[in-house]
Amino acid sequence: MIALSAKDIAAVVGGELEGDGSVTVEGAAGLDEASEREISFFHNTKYIESLQKTRARVVLIPKQTNGTPLPEGKTLIRVDNAQWAFAQVLGLIDQQKQHHPKGIHPKAHVEETAVVGAGTIIYPGCYIGHNVRIGEKCLLYPNVVLREDTQIGSRVIIQAGAVLGADGYGFATQNGRHHKIPQIGRVVIEDDVEIGANVTIDRATTGETRVGAGTKIDNLVHIAHNVRVGRDCLIVAQVGISGSTKVGNRVTLAGQVGITGHLTIGDGAVIAAQSGVMNDVEPGAVLFGTPVRPIKQAMKLEAIYGKLEELYETVKQLRKKLL
Amino acid sequence: MIALSAKDIAAVVGGELEGDGSVTVEGAAGLDEASEREISFFHNTKYIESLQKTRARVVLIPKQTNGTPLPEGKTLIRVDNAQWAFAQVLGLIDQQKQHHPKGIHPKAHVEETAVVGAGTIIYPGCYIGHNVRIGEKCLLYPNVVLREDTQIGSRVIIQAGAVLGADGYGFATQNGRHHKIPQIGRVVIEDDVEIGANVTIDRATTGETRVGAGTKIDNLVHIAHNVRVGRDCLIVAQVGISGSTKVGNRVTLAGQVGITGHLTIGDGAVIAAQSGVMNDVEPGAVLFGTPVRPIKQAMKLEAIYGKLEELYETVKQLRKKLL
Amino acid sequence: MIALSAKDIAAVVGGELEGDGSVTVEGAAGLDEASEREISFFHNTKYIESLQKTRARVVLIPKQTNGTPLPEGKTLIRVDNAQWAFAQVLGLIDQQKQHHPKGIHPKAHVEETAVVGAGTIIYPGCYIGHNVRIGEKCLLYPNVVLREDTQIGSRVIIQAGAVLGADGYGFATQNGRHHKIPQIGRVVIEDDVEIGANVTIDRATTGETRVGAGTKIDNLVHIAHNVRVGRDCLIVAQVGISGSTKVGNRVTLAGQVGITGHLTIGDGAVIAAQSGVMNDVEPGAVLFGTPVRPIKQAMKLEAIYGKLEELYETVKQLRKKLL
Repeated sequence: MIALSAKDIAAVVGGELEGDGSVTVEGAAGLDEASEREISFFHNTKYIESLQKTRARVVLIPKQTNGTPLPEGKTLIRVDNAQWAFAQVLGLIDQQKQHHPKGIHPKAHVEETAVVGAGTIIYPGCYIGHNVRIGEKCLLYPNVVLREDTQIGSRVIIQAGAVLGADGYGFATQNGRHHKIPQIGRVVIEDDVEIGANVTIDRATTGETRVGAGTKIDNLVHIAHNVRVGRDCLIVAQVGISGSTKVGNRVTLAGQVGITGHLTIGDGAVIAAQSGVMNDVEPGAVLFGTPVRPIKQAMKLEAIYGKLEELYETVKQLRKKLL
Repeated sequence: MIALSAKDIAAVVGGELEGDGSVTVEGAAGLDEASEREISFFHNTKYIESLQKTRARVVLIPKQTNGTPLPEGKTLIRVDNAQWAFAQVLGLIDQQKQHHPKGIHPKAHVEETAVVGAGTIIYPGCYIGHNVRIGEKCLLYPNVVLREDTQIGSRVIIQAGAVLGADGYGFATQNGRHHKIPQIGRVVIEDDVEIGANVTIDRATTGETRVGAGTKIDNLVHIAHNVRVGRDCLIVAQVGISGSTKVGNRVTLAGQVGITGHLTIGDGAVIAAQSGVMNDVEPGAVLFGTPVRPIKQAMKLEAIYGKLEELYETVKQLRKKLL
Repeated sequence: MIALSAKDIAAVVGGELEGDGSVTVEGAAGLDEASEREISFFHNTKYIESLQKTRARVVLIPKQTNGTPLPEGKTLIRVDNAQWAFAQVLGLIDQQKQHHPKGIHPKAHVEETAVVGAGTIIYPGCYIGHNVRIGEKCLLYPNVVLREDTQIGSRVIIQAGAVLGADGYGFATQNGRHHKIPQIGRVVIEDDVEIGANVTIDRATTGETRVGAGTKIDNLVHIAHNVRVGRDCLIVAQVGISGSTKVGNRVTLAGQVGITGHLTIGDGAVIAAQSGVMNDVEPGAVLFGTPVRPIKQAMKLEAIYGKLEELYETVKQLRKKLL
């Protein structure tokens, strides 16, 4: 059973207590969902009503609440950033809840030539192939597959069912038959990357497929052979990146985006959901559509598209009159 | 070897026999594909020719055939709904064919704190985490992952490779670095849900990600943290639903649809394939496109889009003449 | 450690040696990435500069180089097709690197009634169900699932996490409830097919879901029940093909394409990335868009779409003047 006192929580998040510090919570939730045994947080004035009604016993609130009416009988913890403090509290609870295996679970299969760093946890059903290198304090959930030669940095989290190092999709076509081009390269995942459930990241034909430090990849994403993804990117669910494309640093690819092969996506670019990228993208560009356009233009065109019927009728009338 | 007599089949589907009831079948197939040892069904007059030519020894046909010429030398079974009766026959054959493990297969990994209901079958390679609850008569195919705290109702079918309860995709970004927000919520699957192969349903940040009773989810679908899906929905392959979105009851999401986060999709809405939903959807709406529009409007706009070249040329001529 | 001599390589690829044949290489890479210990290839004059600067010790080059300045101090191997010869060299290296299990790994689960051909390799974590038939010299990477009755030809490669034979998505809806239609058919994969990581290919309702000889399927593709895919097709990542659709021979479906059910896609058709196919496709057609149009028309319409703002303004002016 989890039990965290308001006083202890305040100490961890560096907050100031208002009210009874001995009160304990057993969990955390949003203002509307929280029970009396949970902690919640208030970070936006549009949730004032929820703040008034919440059953949460302890609430994280901003240092400055500028006259926002505060609920009575609660323990409040004043912090700089209530959302961030809440994330820290989730971490506290998570630590108490965790039931990870100790190190490598005996039902994982790790080849003898693989090297696994200290503090790394590997769940049942994982396959760690020949000559794989895994850094320290990684977390591999069940049924993750790391094919031979894959290199994983430290503090990398890989959700269940992800497959790293499968053969890239490379064939030489002769007389209509497709002959496999052996894929002898590898996958390299840098430090602090997170990889979602059932993601696939293919090994390079030669050389590397690489994901840069701090990049976070959502579920069911496909990253093809020889792709290079930079640092601190966000790659949302079901995105597909074709072979040899280079994605810069701090790029955001929203859900279901597709990117053609051999392109360069500049640092800080943002591609909106379901877009299709067929050309290089400038750093900092914010794009939408298939094919992509600057998002403001894409939205304007989309609005006019919605008036196409009216436009068509007008032109018909004009034509009748004139041509 | 399967052997079902026409007489027994007629009894199960509540049909009336015409012809030799002692004839047996070993399988079932469509009218065109069926062999002499199989049963088939006729439910639509556009297949009259197939009905005449079928090799099937036994055929399920509607009670009223309104003068449709019937093939000779067959055993016919008259029923109210031939398609539905055929599904029941498939069930009979399926029962005879089944080779499920008895209960929990020893090569599945079930944590000690997990509780598995009576009659539930768990195939090899499955991972059932700490504090998971599974109801009665569920069927988990190979390599399914249920992370800690996941709750599954009764009569739930989960196809191979599905991952329930992976961490939601939640990060707090500070100075360009993405810090993990621990995901301490859970996944709840209600009774009679079916979940396709390699589907991913993420645990909630706090609280629940929930799929309502009777909902059927196809392969490779992604359901993000804190999503709530209602009862009796159909969610077709490769759909993606972003975080905290609420999908009503009896909603149909066709293949590859994407839905933005924090939206509400009304009861009975139908979203056509590959559409992108960026705003709330009214109950009963039938929508198409990226972004979605009412399907009739979307189709009309699409038709005019196809004439855009002609429209452009006309305007060019008009302009020349006038401006 | 791998060590291949230029002389041996020349013999294998049927090339003519220029320079020191005793030089050995330990790997292979592109001209720009290769180290001194690697072999590379030159096949296109736009890479002349890379050819001049490459550190590769051995380079495969075309027999005819038409005056292209060649780098000094290298061992060159003259061949008809440098790219194809390079693929052969990758095969040589791959053979020396391989660490496959011998036959069926003891941590794979193979039902007693399954039959596995000679020379077939099955990695840990695979599930081979009742009555499965697998041909000779197949390669099943970790955590592949072949449900009961699946039939696999010879020389088939299945990447990790793929699921073949999961139940098709078939339900009969009565009074708003969806009742499962048992799926008693099977999956048949012909010779020389390759199937990507985390792909799903569903068993047929009755009869077969079939993938023709030589077809290559990329990661995270979904193939529904009763689909028939022809020979020598290329099906790129994240494509979805709905139930009962027939795909001809030598068809290319680019990434994220979606195809509606019960359609026929003609031989040799090419569907560009992210397209949505809602109608039958003629043999040899090259299509793009949602819904698809001939690619030239689609591109032209797309170009005019980009001018929609200008068009709209012009029509507004014309209207003002005239109506």
